[in-house]
Parts: sequence; C-alpha cells; structure tokens
Amino acid sequence: MREVYIIGAHQSVHGNRKDADLRKLIAEAGNPAIADAGIDRHDIQALYMGNYNANQFNNQNTLAALAASSLGIPEAATLRFEAACASGGVAFRNAMIAVAAGVYDTVMVMGIEKMNIGLDQADADSQMNWAKSGVDYTYESGVGMNGATMFAMFAHRHMYEYGTTREMLAISASKNKYHGSLNPYAYKQREVPVDKIIKSPLIASPFSTQEVSLVTDGSAAVILTTKDRAKALGKKNAVKVLGSGHGGGSFSVAFRDSHVRMRATVEAANEAFKMAGIKRSDISVVECHDCFSFTELMNIEDLGFVEKGKGGWFAADGHTRLGGKLPVNTSGGLCAKGHPIGATGVGQIVEMTWQLQDKADKRQVKDAKFALTHVLGGPGSISTVHILGRGDI
Amino acid sequence: MREVYIIGAHQSVHGNRKDADLRKLIAEAGNPAIADAGIDRHDIQALYMGNYNANQFNNQNTLAALAASSLGIPEAATLRFEAACASGGVAFRNAMIAVAAGVYDTVMVMGIEKMNIGLDQADADSQMNWAKSGVDYTYESGVGMNGATMFAMFAHRHMYEYGTTREMLAISASKNKYHGSLNPYAYKQREVPVDKIIKSPLIASPFSTQEVSLVTDGSAAVILTTKDRAKALGKKNAVKVLGSGHGGGSFSVAFRDSHVRMRATVEAANEAFKMAGIKRSDISVVECHDCFSFTELMNIEDLGFVEKGKGGWFAADGHTRLGGKLPVNTSGGLCAKGHPIGATGVGQIVEMTWQLQDKADKRQVKDAKFALTHVLGGPGSISTVHILGRGDI
Repeated sequence: MREVYIIGAHQSVHGNRKDADLRKLIAEAGNPAIADAGIDRHDIQALYMGNYNANQFNNQNTLAALAASSLGIPEAATLRFEAACASGGVAFRNAMIAVAAGVYDTVMVMGIEKMNIGLDQADADSQMNWAKSGVDYTYESGVGMNGATMFAMFAHRHMYEYGTTREMLAISASKNKYHGSLNPYAYKQREVPVDKIIKSPLIASPFSTQEVSLVTDGSAAVILTTKDRAKALGKKNAVKVLGSGHGGGSFSVAFRDSHVRMRATVEAANEAFKMAGIKRSDISVVECHDCFSFTELMNIEDLGFVEKGKGGWFAADGHTRLGGKLPVNTSGGLCAKGHPIGATGVGQIVEMTWQLQDKADKRQVKDAKFALTHVLGGPGSISTVHILGRGDI
Repeated sequence: MREVYIIGAHQSVHGNRKDADLRKLIAEAGNPAIADAGIDRHDIQALYMGNYNANQFNNQNTLAALAASSLGIPEAATLRFEAACASGGVAFRNAMIAVAAGVYDTVMVMGIEKMNIGLDQADADSQMNWAKSGVDYTYESGVGMNGATMFAMFAHRHMYEYGTTREMLAISASKNKYHGSLNPYAYKQREVPVDKIIKSPLIASPFSTQEVSLVTDGSAAVILTTKDRAKALGKKNAVKVLGSGHGGGSFSVAFRDSHVRMRATVEAANEAFKMAGIKRSDISVVECHDCFSFTELMNIEDLGFVEKGKGGWFAADGHTRLGGKLPVNTSGGLCAKGHPIGATGVGQIVEMTWQLQDKADKRQVKDAKFALTHVLGGPGSISTVHILGRGDI
C-alpha cells in the first residue's frame, strides 16, 4: 500500500448556524481545504462524505453528490458513509484505503451535519428521534433508550466498579470547556468551572446539561494524496497518515460483555497502533469521542493510554489538559466544540492536522509529533482510530 | 492489488414482504450467503452495507452494525454506504478495494431496503418524499421533481433526438417482465405483453405503471475473499471480480451537459473495462439499472454496447432478451424483480454470480463467461460498473 498524506484541511465555525444551509457549510470547509492543498479542484477524483442523517434533518440524501456539484467538481466519484457518530471516521478510513491501494491519487473527505433547523418544540421531539436512530429501534430506541440514557448507565457502572467520582466527570468536562474557550471554531467558547457543571440541570444522571454533546451545525474537509504528489506540490507540512483501525461491538447494548469497556475502541486502537508501528507513549495529543463527559474517561482507558478504571484519576490529575502529559480534545471536543454528527470524525482530523503543522494557535501542543483521533458510534458498536504524524516530505 | 473473488452469494425473495422485518431480510440473504461460501461466519472481518433510507422507512440508521449483530458477528467492523440508487454498488466496490488492498481477507457485502411499511395513503405521500430525497431538495425535489418526472423528460428528449419510439420502451419492459416470470426471487413473476404495457395507466409520460421500478422489500449478500483463500476453501466455482468503475455527474439535472447520456455511467464503464482488460463484445450478460423502461435503453448505449441513440432498436430487435446477442436484466430488473434501493446493486452481483456458476436455472445464459453489473443513482450523478468472470481456481 502507498503512504497517504493530508495536504489540505479546514472546517466551518461550529454552532447553531442559522445563517448557513448545507451548501454554505460545504463551501466553508471545502473551498479553504482545496486552497490549503494548493491544488486545482478538478484534481479531486472522489469525494468521500461522512453524514449521519441529512435526509431527516434537511430532506436531503446523497449528500456527497450534492457537495461535489456545489464545489464545482460534478465529475468526481461520490459516496456517503453512515456509521452513526463514527460516520466521519469511516469516510476518512475508506478514502485513505483507496489512495493507499492506488485507486485514486487525490481525494477529498468531507463530514457535515446541519442539525439546527428552526423547529418548534413539537418537532424538536422528532429531531431527537432522528438523532437516536443509530440505536437499535426494535429493542432499545423504540422503547425509550437513547445515547444519553445509555452512556449514563455506562457511567454509573464505571463509578460502581472503579470508584470514579462525580467530580472527576465534571473536571474533565470543565477542561474541555476551557479548551473550547481557546478555539475560534467551537460552538461554546466560554470556560465553565467544575462546581457550575455539577450544579447545572440534570439530563440523565450523572450528566448535567454541561456534559452532553451539542446539537450542532458544522462541516470539515481534508484533502488526501500520495507522498509523490505531496512532494511535487512542495507540501513540506503535509501530515502523514500512519495508522488506521476500525473495530466493532454488539449493536444491542443488552448483549455486550462489558458496559465499561468498548470492544470497538480497543480493537480499532490495536489495529491502528499495529499499522503505525509506534507506542502509546509516543502520542502527543488526542481527539477522542467525548459524547458525554464520562465517555472521554472510558476512551482513554480503551485506547490504552491508562489502565482500565484509572481514566477519572488521570483527568483529575490534570494530565489531559493543555500543558499536561497527554492533552485530550484540544478543540473542546463534542461538548464544547460541538458534535455535528457526520462532521465530527473529519473535524478531529483537521484539529490534529493543525496541531502537527503548528497551526493550532492558543491550543498548540508544543512539539506535537504524533496525534490520535477516535470516534465511537452506534452507541459503541463502531469505532475508528487514526494516527497521524508530522510529514517527512 | 490482490485479486478478489466472490465465494458466496444469496438474496431474499423480493416483494411486499409483510412477513419480514429488517432482521428477517438480513437473515434471508446473509445466512445462505455464508453457507454458500462454506466459511465460519466469524471469518467475516467487515460488513459493508448498502442501504438508502432505513432511518425513514424503518426508524433505523446504522444498519451495518444491526446486521452484523443479528447475524451473530458483532465483532465485525461495520459501515453503511448511501449513494441513492447506487448504494449497493458503492458498498461492493469499497469492499472489493479493501480486500484487494490487503486490509481484509474476508468480508460480507450486503444490500437491503424494506420500503413497504403498511402506511395509509397520507403516509404514502411521505414515503414517496423519502424515496425522492436523493434528488436536489433545494432546486428540484423540493419543488416537485422526482425520479419518474426526471427520467420521463430524459426519455422524451431521447425520442426527440434519436427517433426512439413508445413501442421500443414497452418492448424492453415486456422483455424484463418475461425474465421476471422465470425468476423465483422476483417481486412480479408474470409476463405482460407489449400492448398491455402501453395501455396501462400513465405514471409520467411516456411511462405507464408497468414501466417503473417497484417499491420493494429485499436483501442480497455476497462474500468476498482473496484468491489464496478461495483456493484453500476449494471454491472451484468462485467468481472473479475483474473490473470496477465509479463515475460522477452533476447532481442537479438542470446543470447536465446532456439528458440522454449519463456521464457517470460512461466514466464508470470506461474505468471498469480498463481494469478488466476485456472488450465490450466479451460480455455475455448484463444487469443494468432499469429504474424506468427507458433507462435500460440509455444504459446499454452509455455502457458502450451500442452506438448512442440505437438502444431502442437493439431492444426492439430482441438482442437483449434471453437467447439474444446480449441478454440484459435476466433477473427481471428493477421493474419486475423489484428495486429495494440499497439491495439492488448487490442483488445484481448475486444474479451475475449465479449466471457465471450455471445456477441461474430457467434464466441461464449458456456459456456465460463475463458478466457486467451497473447501477445509477442520484438521479444520474453516481454510477458504478462491475465486471465479473468465471473463476480460475
């Protein structure tokens, strides 16, 4: 397989983007990513799209074809990926495989979701039903379960098994709000202290309103190419894709062997590290899927950075904060930057690309050498992990 | 890239399957495909799913994870592909690329759609809105356009430019009804004479009710693996994937350079034939995307089997009928076998695999050596073409 490089990356400002329809969000990520790559847009042979549910949010399926046409490249081969909250991650992985295999030399990966659509309260209920269609309808979502109630149960089990505390969850959430306050692309750019997080209204115990991923409009895009082409373009700051992993686990939460360990994440991480040939301790910075405050603590265990059960202590000791041993979610993550579902996996790649290009401004991790991204979908049945490194062009 | 082989294939009976929910349709295609392959199901490393819109038809997104879990392989890496009516085709192509690239040794590709959901008339309107979400909502589907009205315009333009007649469309449709009458997996298994097709109620001029693809429940699955593994399993009838192509064209129909020639099909066919290294005249049998009677005539031109404008005459002369020069849609195609949207591209692969294994029973094309499949989605903005050949194990 050929080595694959990221030569262009950009994302939209995330938020409740009343000013932006799908086409505007596509343009806000896509056009600057093409400019960053320094290519003619017609060099893009295929557009890989991560999108979760535009057909219900926006009456629009087949969003990859819409995106290619609205970016002025209708001739591109287009396809959309849906894997619940991991949609952007699987789109990136398959694009990488196609370039590595020699099928394409230059492709765009885009992720997008426009979830805020100005609905009234009656319709807001439908909107939440649409969001939870990634959960088993027959046995789980159809009888009232959704992401929040499921992850709340996982959190309580983790607290019971390992002594993780309410405060540890809030400390991690507050850290991400701080990171978000430094990110001009984040939905929420304001610090929130630990005590305010704990005192905020409860969504699903133990999570308060400050600890859930945000209903967000946003988009992100990266351009992938070969080493030869990155060299020919003189892209000295091109970021190398070192590893990719894709893991699975039971779709029905009821049939999992564990609710405090996501098999999909463990497998995806093992596959990605094996491919990259580096150690956990080599990683400088991580973007992981903190759909709820607790999820980040579980993720850093499942990714292999700390022993199972120790995620809460690792966060409470400040190791995941900017300046710590292993800064996690420098973007602010899903609860501060926001979670436009299909865009999230690609947005993580953009944030880590910027970190490895020393472009992360106030969020910059000094001398970041290797970065890891992780998404988790459906709810915990699908995960992808990607490992990126500074280019060697 | 490694050579890729199909070692197992099966599909559900297509129709208005009141007896079957998603899990049953998954089982009806998936389990016999695994049995046909003669593998332990846990050998399946990834499940590639083609599905267009289960989240609206069935309240269920993330169908690949649901399918893997309900087939007893929750550990598989799962992902869903959506590319309108080409969803199954892009799923197959990406699975093939992953095996060719060495990412996986054994994968399942499944396509599924359950479109008949017992709705009353008020809801049937919603159902048609869901079906047309693959068309540009802002400029086309939102103001009343849908697949039928678009392809009706294409048909009239073709009749105007090339003299294609109303009868030629009906002859092609009647031929597919005849093929469907021989297929125990088809939704409609009854012959319909040309005059009855013409006299049936109009849907969108020139198409009558007998010339439109059917709202269908169905599923299809194939197992892909490497040559070495096919050999080790003793699969002497394994079918080889010789070529794959994926083309694009403008999503908005208004911005196409032609309405009688689908650029996406032309490009996909050229890419697939180049990869396969064979000629058009080597192909023994074709499954192509006859979403309306006219579409098949345009497809056989765009695929390069006949000169542009001559598709109608080729069909009227009987060349596309079983026993003709180039039998097309031996399954009955989308208007007789049916069109469970996400399943269609995979179901075509099943039909052609059976032809190349001499398992097509009354529909068997004698000495079929090379077969071609073609899907067209969104509406005409995405196409995939695959070329299959008898194995050489």
